[in-house]
Amino acid sequence: MQKDFDAALAAIVPVDRSLTEKGQAHLDNLTKPKGSLGRLEDLALQMFLVQNGEGPVADPMRIYTVAGDHGVNAEGVSLFPQEVTRQMILNFLNGGAGINVLAETAGAQLYVVDAGSCGGGYDEHPNLIQEKIAPGTANLAEGPAMTREQCLKALMLGISLADRAMADGVKVLGTGDMGISNTTPSTALYCAYLGLDPESMTGPGTGLDKAGVASKALVIHKGLRANKAAVESGDPIEILAALGGYEIATLAGLILGGAKNRQLVCVDGFISTAAYAAAWKICPTVQEYCVISHASAEPGHATAVKAMNLDPLLSLGFRLGEGTGAACAMYLVRSAADMYTKMATFADAGVTEGTD
Amino acid sequence: MQKDFDAALAAIVPVDRSLTEKGQAHLDNLTKPKGSLGRLEDLALQMFLVQNGEGPVADPMRIYTVAGDHGVNAEGVSLFPQEVTRQMILNFLNGGAGINVLAETAGAQLYVVDAGSCGGGYDEHPNLIQEKIAPGTANLAEGPAMTREQCLKALMLGISLADRAMADGVKVLGTGDMGISNTTPSTALYCAYLGLDPESMTGPGTGLDKAGVASKALVIHKGLRANKAAVESGDPIEILAALGGYEIATLAGLILGGAKNRQLVCVDGFISTAAYAAAWKICPTVQEYCVISHASAEPGHATAVKAMNLDPLLSLGFRLGEGTGAACAMYLVRSAADMYTKMATFADAGVTEGTD
Repeated sequence: MQKDFDAALAAIVPVDRSLTEKGQAHLDNLTKPKGSLGRLEDLALQMFLVQNGEGPVADPMRIYTVAGDHGVNAEGVSLFPQEVTRQMILNFLNGGAGINVLAETAGAQLYVVDAGSCGGGYDEHPNLIQEKIAPGTANLAEGPAMTREQCLKALMLGISLADRAMADGVKVLGTGDMGISNTTPSTALYCAYLGLDPESMTGPGTGLDKAGVASKALVIHKGLRANKAAVESGDPIEILAALGGYEIATLAGLILGGAKNRQLVCVDGFISTAAYAAAWKICPTVQEYCVISHASAEPGHATAVKAMNLDPLLSLGFRLGEGTGAACAMYLVRSAADMYTKMATFADAGVTEGTD
Repeated sequence: MQKDFDAALAAIVPVDRSLTEKGQAHLDNLTKPKGSLGRLEDLALQMFLVQNGEGPVADPMRIYTVAGDHGVNAEGVSLFPQEVTRQMILNFLNGGAGINVLAETAGAQLYVVDAGSCGGGYDEHPNLIQEKIAPGTANLAEGPAMTREQCLKALMLGISLADRAMADGVKVLGTGDMGISNTTPSTALYCAYLGLDPESMTGPGTGLDKAGVASKALVIHKGLRANKAAVESGDPIEILAALGGYEIATLAGLILGGAKNRQLVCVDGFISTAAYAAAWKICPTVQEYCVISHASAEPGHATAVKAMNLDPLLSLGFRLGEGTGAACAMYLVRSAADMYTKMATFADAGVTEGTD
């Protein structure tokens, strides 16, 4: 397992920066004042580099919404009962959740992945991938959430999801999560990876009140203490195993796999960015292949993205997860690719360039 | 003309706030934590009110990109020569401009309107509406840009564009502009309507350097002095005639017409928001029917939207105009409508609600 994982990591290469000039020159030749499409131009250039000087092409796009349950739910860190993870998986399969609607509107494929929800299997469904590693993690407040082996399994699952998408021609990936209580492991991961403290990083998740947030911060403190050796090891996989979750580790693998495959990855909100933090600590090059889709309303997100020097594309006050922010960002990714490939140049259109 | 205009204004009615509770209750019943889709929920509720408790339905959508030239161009306030307005109209008709690509990607219809470009007519084109009021405005630095009659003509043109869209079933409108030098009249309008000063409000437009911006601010000062009587009259139509432009006044009319027709209007960036300021001064109720699509990179935009207590939906560093920001916002408008109408409720999906 470790060997396969190391082989995948070794296949992640930085983008070829020598292509930047060519991509920028093309953008500057399009019939608009230079830079006047702002972030869309940045996105188009990033995609041009990610696709190694081809395209850029945005479609097909695919979101993987990965589910997992959390032993730490026993500490009372969420307003929703744990069975909602399973109920929401069924809701995804029936097409009724936020991500179903937003993925469809964005023209992105949606696959649901059971990486670690509680309970048994699900009826077969063409958009469901059942790869349950275990029915929920152990309670991170008392010790490691996963073994290293389980964590590596989840990372490899994520890489295999990117590969499966690659085989289907997918150019752009989106990350999505479902897991009651998963802002708790995500917050713990931010604290461990970025040296941040639970008091400032813990937020309401799906809607805890002030006392609930304070109690959740204490649970995270407890988890960091219970997993002190892993945290102090500085080994990103040990930290992920100790404090993460099956969906989070799978999404970290998806990000690594996307980078390996030269697929642009639209990272969703608070949970997915924690997966990004893990992937980035494992392999900093993933940064070149990722877009942070949106600024989550979960308060710690702003601190985390700042600590990683990232700048989210959208800021819509989302705090739902599932990949909903990624779906909205993917639409802008398509707009960026179309802008790059379909706009006329000054010469083609007979438009006079500005003097500067 | 004034009579027709007054009749249109009289037909603008506030939304029925008593419907808010019903719309909010529906949003809160959808399978997501309450409010977790942030701005998308606000948008959906706004649309529900705009459509008077129906839908909300987003499609069809239509962007009108309205063109006009400006006498103040003679003062050297732009890096691009005036003929670029005409060249860009041809580029729009050939499908090569930024707005062509972004409107197509957003699934919005695009019509180009010549309200006042320099030079003669254009060859016929199914997406071109030729309603030239005059070939460019007079130089606002020396006196009124338009007569009141011309300004009313442009306002009525805009209202007729909304009506034409209404006849075609259009639910959501987008505003777009094309006019070399049109950040100058727009800035002058912000100063006059909102009591702001040219030094803090004047920006680089398509890319002026520091000296160019300073000189442009002086031109705007000169314009405010040359049109002192209009500015001090407080009459929003007199101010629009004195300092505006044909595309700006037409877009103000489009906003008023959209409100009259209960169409949601996605207001584009710096120029369109100046048109919004005019429409809002003429009839404050338009606020309920409008979305400010994005925060323009033109520095004065942030000050202007703040002065009007508005909160742009996107912030992508755009400074192109043409309706490009509106096109991106329209995609989110569709997402909001789909979210409202297609997501399952907790009861339908058998998902347990959170405790709160």
